[in-house]
Amino acid sequence: MSEQKLEKGLVQVYTGNGKGKTSAAFGAALRAVGRGLRVYVIQFIKGGFDYGELYSIKSLSNLKLTAFGRGRFIIESRPPEEDVKLAREGFELARKVVSSGEYDMVVLDEINVALHLKMISVDDVIQLVKNKPKHVELILTGRNAPAEIVEVADLVTEMKEIKHPYADGVPPRKGIEY
Amino acid sequence: MSEQKLEKGLVQVYTGNGKGKTSAAFGAALRAVGRGLRVYVIQFIKGGFDYGELYSIKSLSNLKLTAFGRGRFIIESRPPEEDVKLAREGFELARKVVSSGEYDMVVLDEINVALHLKMISVDDVIQLVKNKPKHVELILTGRNAPAEIVEVADLVTEMKEIKHPYADGVPPRKGIEY
Repeated sequence: MSEQKLEKGLVQVYTGNGKGKTSAAFGAALRAVGRGLRVYVIQFIKGGFDYGELYSIKSLSNLKLTAFGRGRFIIESRPPEEDVKLAREGFELARKVVSSGEYDMVVLDEINVALHLKMISVDDVIQLVKNKPKHVELILTGRNAPAEIVEVADLVTEMKEIKHPYADGVPPRKGIEY
Repeated sequence: MSEQKLEKGLVQVYTGNGKGKTSAAFGAALRAVGRGLRVYVIQFIKGGFDYGELYSIKSLSNLKLTAFGRGRFIIESRPPEEDVKLAREGFELARKVVSSGEYDMVVLDEINVALHLKMISVDDVIQLVKNKPKHVELILTGRNAPAEIVEVADLVTEMKEIKHPYADGVPPRKGIEY
């Protein structure tokens, strides 16, 4: 089952201010590994924090994950040096993982945020997209996807917040928001 | 770990014409089971069709799934009797599963489509939402969520299609679209 390969991998982007971007990427990963595809998830910004999916994916074969970041939301217009360093390490790994062709789907979770904050360069990501092996499906998530990324993607979904309970003072819940 | 319960379960809706609604629900389920929450996914319309996630969820404990439907997209303004019957059976199961309180998260995948096509009644679903045990998180997916469902939900995300490769003639791919 593990020699299944996509004939043509596309570039998917999940962006917007609504809930569901990372979940959609993990749902896509779940579907892919169910077909014997190999998936690598690289998380930007989020590392160092404890998410429910990190426990359940341990029982899935063919799904690897590495997180870079310190698990804090970065709101500064000038992100701390340490966060920039981690984002760049994440991107270096992304480059290796994608170009190796060993994985059929590579998820770059929250990379749009790192791009928006100029922690990594849009041109570098565009090069990654253009030079990727044909069979590799790339999924880029995170709000504020730069226009150049939307341009180079094949499929773009905007998750638009219509209603959100945080506005009503509901705190993040274990198993749901993390 | 299995006695973890949510203090307050909310009602989430994923709707819109973009890709990622069902994937977001499965990603949410993956996170929830990682925390020891019990999840039941009931699929409307889609049953009888072969999706990649149906294979991978077998290795996840605490995740149950039942599909109702014949796996065809129903575009008729008047859906066939057989499909209506299946949708109603699905809703009966949803009622039992939710009211039992045995599951912490119940996903009603594509129920919005069944509602939009009047295969099941919006009032019945609103009653289900209003009478649900407090700890149960409900996730309703599918395009064309009726306004009354949006009204009664706590969190609503619209998946908006910005770009889609089907328009360029790319057929659905095993492991990605199914």
